[in-house]
Amino acid sequence: MNLMREVNVGIVGLGNVGSGTLAILAENAGQIALKLGFRLRVAAVCSRSVDSKPIPESLGPIFKTTDWRELVAHPEVDIVAELVGGATVAREIIEGAIAHHKSVVTANKELMAVCGSEIWDRAIRAGINLAMEASVAGGIPIHAVLREGISGDRVVALYGILNGTSNYILTEMEKHGAALADVLAEAQRLGYAEADPSADIDGLDARSKLAILSALAFGEKITPADIFVEGIRRISPMDFQYAHQLGHTIRLLCAARQTPDGLILSVRPGLIPRSTILAGVLGAYNAVWVKGHYGQDTFYYGRGAGPAPTGVAVVSDLMRVAREIRSGSPERVSPFAHERLGEYRPVSVLVQKRAYYLRFRVDDRPGIIARLGGILAAKHISLEAVLQLPCDTKHDLPFVITVEPTSEKAIREAVEEMAHLDFLREPPLALPMEPPL
Amino acid sequence: MNLMREVNVGIVGLGNVGSGTLAILAENAGQIALKLGFRLRVAAVCSRSVDSKPIPESLGPIFKTTDWRELVAHPEVDIVAELVGGATVAREIIEGAIAHHKSVVTANKELMAVCGSEIWDRAIRAGINLAMEASVAGGIPIHAVLREGISGDRVVALYGILNGTSNYILTEMEKHGAALADVLAEAQRLGYAEADPSADIDGLDARSKLAILSALAFGEKITPADIFVEGIRRISPMDFQYAHQLGHTIRLLCAARQTPDGLILSVRPGLIPRSTILAGVLGAYNAVWVKGHYGQDTFYYGRGAGPAPTGVAVVSDLMRVAREIRSGSPERVSPFAHERLGEYRPVSVLVQKRAYYLRFRVDDRPGIIARLGGILAAKHISLEAVLQLPCDTKHDLPFVITVEPTSEKAIREAVEEMAHLDFLREPPLALPMEPPL
Repeated sequence: MNLMREVNVGIVGLGNVGSGTLAILAENAGQIALKLGFRLRVAAVCSRSVDSKPIPESLGPIFKTTDWRELVAHPEVDIVAELVGGATVAREIIEGAIAHHKSVVTANKELMAVCGSEIWDRAIRAGINLAMEASVAGGIPIHAVLREGISGDRVVALYGILNGTSNYILTEMEKHGAALADVLAEAQRLGYAEADPSADIDGLDARSKLAILSALAFGEKITPADIFVEGIRRISPMDFQYAHQLGHTIRLLCAARQTPDGLILSVRPGLIPRSTILAGVLGAYNAVWVKGHYGQDTFYYGRGAGPAPTGVAVVSDLMRVAREIRSGSPERVSPFAHERLGEYRPVSVLVQKRAYYLRFRVDDRPGIIARLGGILAAKHISLEAVLQLPCDTKHDLPFVITVEPTSEKAIREAVEEMAHLDFLREPPLALPMEPPL
Repeated sequence: MNLMREVNVGIVGLGNVGSGTLAILAENAGQIALKLGFRLRVAAVCSRSVDSKPIPESLGPIFKTTDWRELVAHPEVDIVAELVGGATVAREIIEGAIAHHKSVVTANKELMAVCGSEIWDRAIRAGINLAMEASVAGGIPIHAVLREGISGDRVVALYGILNGTSNYILTEMEKHGAALADVLAEAQRLGYAEADPSADIDGLDARSKLAILSALAFGEKITPADIFVEGIRRISPMDFQYAHQLGHTIRLLCAARQTPDGLILSVRPGLIPRSTILAGVLGAYNAVWVKGHYGQDTFYYGRGAGPAPTGVAVVSDLMRVAREIRSGSPERVSPFAHERLGEYRPVSVLVQKRAYYLRFRVDDRPGIIARLGGILAAKHISLEAVLQLPCDTKHDLPFVITVEPTSEKAIREAVEEMAHLDFLREPPLALPMEPPL
């Protein structure tokens, strides 16, 4: 390879992220070359509607195609950026690129969460590099941090706010006391939330991201199906009022914790102390808290999505992979930080001990607390406090019981038993209370 | 080179950081090998009192010496970790290692701030790698972030809390209303602060760190002497009371901002809004806020110092450099993110426009506000608010004037003129008020 020549990039997918990437490669070309010591050139782009896509003129002549097979086979392309998303065609594109011995940069969380380890095995065999910074928390370089920045540490826990839409919804509910449905409708109107909001508010998007980050942090093959998930649909404005009374707030928290038996993984709404820096993550921002055995607490914060922040992640990956190509490096850095991922032995969230927040809506009558307290006592759960904010109705009266740390199993059994009580308007809402992070 | 063999490390300096590094290399050896795919072996250590230093047994046989020349010349040593600190012997060690074509990892902020660019030039010519993650904000992998994680972005501003001791002092003053001298004495008693506290409280340590980070972020040769510095000696508990009234707090803020004329660099105490996530950085923690042209706001937080967090930075650097050595890579990643640093054209802090907080201590009498207001008006500075907290004395009466954004030059001229007024107990304290970050 001629060490003086530039490294050539082919981009498949010119949607939001693809266009953002192209814009940065064009506008920031000078600084990129200063950093690399050589030019990163866009040699080819592919999109189903490539002719209608604006391509910055400063990029010079570019091979345009509507067929990704032409792009991955193009002799000038050294690195393929797969920015199509989804798990079907994207997989073909990545595997096609690998088959042509092209390195790959991807922003694809669905695919990498489900079969990233398999794709990495293929990449190793083909001797190419694979990078996926943009797949999780677009604006936060959390892959670089876990893969290299703190690679000498041993991660013992990782907490994340990884879905911007649900965090936006929760923090709007908190600020304005609005109902979830109203905030969601407004977010959909503004284009922040999808018409089908399930991936965001049921925690599925966050779960894919946690699968990737915990594979990186702990070196185990973790797929989304391994992770307990619960969405935010049941959170209401009054829960924020009660949480505030308790010095807490509520966030959709992705958590991965090392225990003596293995990793416990969950994506679920939970109470976190308002004094923790994680509670300051508002709106569509993302954040990751890493607890290292040696380095202790570190915290990373930035935009979770958007063409430009995600484009930065793609371009930074392209630069790193271009360096590897230029150096003719036979050793590559695993996108999962570990050369090979170990098998994950799932540890059920049921064994985890936490304090819990139990919120009830009841038709008021004498003996309710005695009845609920009896059920908790039978499960050996100690009541910590009973909290009732002023309310002018006896029907549909909310109140909260907090309990001392107990297992998720005991809480679920208690909640299930309570669900049949005729004075309850709806099954109790049980949320874990996280210790100060 | 035999690709199957381990990469060998030699450590010079077994003080806090050196011992922390050695402990991690010993205890975490298994995970390090899993991540790298090969072993990172400690082949040699050097310390003036090497025989009295505890060396973890699991490291196996190690060459021990009191003479760093023997260590850098040792044929088995591939990477030299310089953990001695200071700018004299440390420089000889690094240059000695480079002369022997050994790669270098260093935690040395003084040295890298003053002549890092020169040392990097030498490293390039010798074809070795140089890494310095541990030199700034030990526990935060901010070098990895700027060098690779967000390398595709163009940094437009960088703010940091980079001196743990002064942040500890300020946040203790804020929490307990204690005087700086008392908090400092307590910190010295506990061993958090040096007997000569100047490097910490006069901002000199933070200035070295800002010089390194801004060279990395902006690709220019920046030395500490280029940076305006002002320490925290004049901050008193009442300043926190007034700042809180204004919705702000006070921190020793390192700032580097791109302007059309060039970079403005400063280390100085300033008011920051309490709502900003930077205001939540308490005690000895460090934090860095980066504003990217594309990726916008990202924020990084962690321990600033300590043997284990700094040890993680050193070990992570060793792992990265070991990968480069294993790959026989002819291209290296610059520790300054840029292949070559450009010349820095200093832009004076005098041209910068900010709102200002002016705190006075006066012997009360009629006409004071008129007099001060007259001086401000003559400099075309618009008064924003006058604030006086309840106080039961007419002698040594504190109050605060805030003014609308104006140049540092105008404020300095006004303050200088005010300093001669006979009703002032001390010269006015002028602190810039940062806009929400």
